[in-house]
Amino acid sequence: MTTPRAALLSLALAVVAPVAQATPFDADSLATARALRDAAAAGSGAYAIVESLTSEVGPRMPGTDADARGVAWAEAKFRALGYDRVLLQPVTFPNWKRGAERAELLPPFAQPLHVTALGGSVGTDGAIEGEVVEFADLAALRAAHAGSLEGKIAYVAHRMERFRDGSGYGPAVAARSEGANDASRAGAIALLIRSIGTDSHRFPHTGNMRYQDGVKPVPAAALSNPDADQLSRLLSRGVPVRVRLDLDVGFDGEYTSHNVIGEIIGREKPDEFVVIGGHLDSWDLGTGAIDDGAGIGITMDAGARIAALPTRPRRSIRVIAFANEEQGLIGAKQYAVANDIDRHLIGAESDFGAGRIYALRAGVDPAAWPAVIAIAEVLVPLGIGLEPGVGGPGPDIIPLRDRGMPWAQLAQDGTDYFDYHHTADDTLDKIDPKALDQQVAAYAAFAWLAAELKGDFGRLPPRTPAPNPPVASGSGTR
Amino acid sequence: MTTPRAALLSLALAVVAPVAQATPFDADSLATARALRDAAAAGSGAYAIVESLTSEVGPRMPGTDADARGVAWAEAKFRALGYDRVLLQPVTFPNWKRGAERAELLPPFAQPLHVTALGGSVGTDGAIEGEVVEFADLAALRAAHAGSLEGKIAYVAHRMERFRDGSGYGPAVAARSEGANDASRAGAIALLIRSIGTDSHRFPHTGNMRYQDGVKPVPAAALSNPDADQLSRLLSRGVPVRVRLDLDVGFDGEYTSHNVIGEIIGREKPDEFVVIGGHLDSWDLGTGAIDDGAGIGITMDAGARIAALPTRPRRSIRVIAFANEEQGLIGAKQYAVANDIDRHLIGAESDFGAGRIYALRAGVDPAAWPAVIAIAEVLVPLGIGLEPGVGGPGPDIIPLRDRGMPWAQLAQDGTDYFDYHHTADDTLDKIDPKALDQQVAAYAAFAWLAAELKGDFGRLPPRTPAPNPPVASGSGTR
Repeated sequence: MTTPRAALLSLALAVVAPVAQATPFDADSLATARALRDAAAAGSGAYAIVESLTSEVGPRMPGTDADARGVAWAEAKFRALGYDRVLLQPVTFPNWKRGAERAELLPPFAQPLHVTALGGSVGTDGAIEGEVVEFADLAALRAAHAGSLEGKIAYVAHRMERFRDGSGYGPAVAARSEGANDASRAGAIALLIRSIGTDSHRFPHTGNMRYQDGVKPVPAAALSNPDADQLSRLLSRGVPVRVRLDLDVGFDGEYTSHNVIGEIIGREKPDEFVVIGGHLDSWDLGTGAIDDGAGIGITMDAGARIAALPTRPRRSIRVIAFANEEQGLIGAKQYAVANDIDRHLIGAESDFGAGRIYALRAGVDPAAWPAVIAIAEVLVPLGIGLEPGVGGPGPDIIPLRDRGMPWAQLAQDGTDYFDYHHTADDTLDKIDPKALDQQVAAYAAFAWLAAELKGDFGRLPPRTPAPNPPVASGSGTR
Repeated sequence: MTTPRAALLSLALAVVAPVAQATPFDADSLATARALRDAAAAGSGAYAIVESLTSEVGPRMPGTDADARGVAWAEAKFRALGYDRVLLQPVTFPNWKRGAERAELLPPFAQPLHVTALGGSVGTDGAIEGEVVEFADLAALRAAHAGSLEGKIAYVAHRMERFRDGSGYGPAVAARSEGANDASRAGAIALLIRSIGTDSHRFPHTGNMRYQDGVKPVPAAALSNPDADQLSRLLSRGVPVRVRLDLDVGFDGEYTSHNVIGEIIGREKPDEFVVIGGHLDSWDLGTGAIDDGAGIGITMDAGARIAALPTRPRRSIRVIAFANEEQGLIGAKQYAVANDIDRHLIGAESDFGAGRIYALRAGVDPAAWPAVIAIAEVLVPLGIGLEPGVGGPGPDIIPLRDRGMPWAQLAQDGTDYFDYHHTADDTLDKIDPKALDQQVAAYAAFAWLAAELKGDFGRLPPRTPAPNPPVASGSGTR
């Protein structure tokens, strides 16, 4: 892949050459970035941070007691790591709760199925039973005629593909996020999907879904991939296959959590911010190690290394532990409303597991490409190449990007990410501490350089943001 | 390993030379064995049999409705496969049942733990809570003074090691089978163990345990390995760690299942038997694919290939689908009581997963080694070597061996076996159909040749069998 990448780089340089600054960074800034990189790569504190969060707090589903314990943990950890100040910004959202959930095949094939409700699903209000109708994918379900699934359970069997960059997720995940609406329109009493995941272990993958206006909500759940195989095998026999589903889940009131922000106050422009971070919440099934304890540990440690330098960076750096990413980027959306995003220079979120970073990608004004290239030069020794023209920001950066903030993406190897994503199996043992060190090295060098930049990254065209979730009264810095 | 094996072989030949028969098998018998081998290796029906059993019946815990469905399935399958006759022999045992089971860490570390009761455990009779005391292994727990664990939960953290031959199981499994007695003697209210398994997925491994006479029974359960890691990490902090345990399990009455036997009636000595087989029952958590649907599929298909030959073998071959192996070899023990084992020439059980066979091992009279060597010669093209002086029979062969019956072991690669063993993750997708073909080839050639042998395998010294479980009145062939 050297030749095409080199060609793209040449192209990028040619495009930006007329407006490029000769030296976006001082030599001292670059030297400090290299020193940050090399020290972190030799051994970081990220694993210890993830170990602490996932062991002591464990799963941190939004709206649970553990959500509050996570916030207290993050506040204390930022302080212990020597950040200049720690901010808590309230984030309010509807509280979705998971109780018992159970599914089973009915006679003549009676046996349990491993299932989990999708986040945001309504419950079954006691057990429901129905014959299962299989669809190869969401498009096939969408083609089902209104009323054709009356009393039936729709089952989408689409199998997610495995790629390093996780690009199998996009084509698969719509069945999870939207499928219940299509099932309901066709008259089904529930939706089952094959898990959006690449493993063949007996863990169903949860994840968020949303009912569209005017659609009667029907319960939605994911089968583990071996259970989906089993269901498809039985259906292939051409005999009726019936399932009983009992999901005690649903919304109950509101809850206020917090974005927790560790700040390193800039020496020249303390009111301008570079953002790195991850999300503090997790789904309830695992302990949120790769999603997103890793991102929290990587970025907290990266910031702590900058906080420990004798000199503050030119601008402020905010390491943000976002609240409730999983149920709709709610913490990020409320951050974008409660803060002046025009003063946010650039942002990068680590939320794609714990695999090594292999590429730097960015969305910046074309005039700022020399700065991106200069950052990339510092990252190359970590095995990180520059990939112009592709990628996108981490999920919690999207609401900030929609307000014009440039983004960087430190793209991780996600080959195994969707083996564990949103399952009970997302636990600390899935993390390689050395891979975390590489990522801390990259985030520390990136954040430092971005905050040291002599110019800026420009602004991006604003986009119409997704509808905002309810914002807490008094939302802002506490 | 070539040199020591060759040396052992030479030794074996030297020992048996004086009484060895020049030609244990007719040339026709050997030719038929090779043809059976090559046809099966090119493609067998074993995978389709396992697929049918694990999909249509699913888990088959002794004493459940699915136990009876499994017996009906096996009877029908033997008939469909063209066996000469199908026998059902009743097997009665105490009925152990698993209801809901739940464990959680208590504050300040509140979070769920993935746990499963050990087979035979008493229940907790409502939730119990206690501080956890960790022991590195069973020996350390045994050294705990009487009364020293009053009100506490004993936790054995020993980690099973991974080997091709599964030899990590022996040193680890005593914590499961016996540990509750030691915990009770020290005053503990319950036993938790790290799962006897080599994976790092969030599946607890169940398996049988037994209370010793005079010991107050306390509940016993296994944590998944990631949960054991979590518990050990929290305990390493030197603060009290408390767990709540709620296991609704226990014995309730008796149940009568059946050994299901497919017989190929011998042309010369129909009352002498060669036994191959597996066990029909499974634990309830998975679908019993590698334990032991694979053994059932391999040996049923191997026998069917012999049944399809134009000539019956000299002796009868019994393919036995044993009942209730998991809770103490109960089907095999009752088979050994209800049948004349003196008329059983040799036996081999497939009960070590679905990995390829790499070695033939045997326990026979020394005079019979030429026959074993002649069988081994037929197996060598399958990648199977002869390993004299090591190994032992499959579990259900033990009660027959204890009555003097020689045994063979077609030793499988068990590198991954204990990743799935006794977990919810023991499902069909863990089986490689081509590996099953190799095993069918070996079992078909072995069973055919053993039944064709001109002499016999001698007898082994009888051993005192383990105490028999209750035998059903009227036990025998139905």
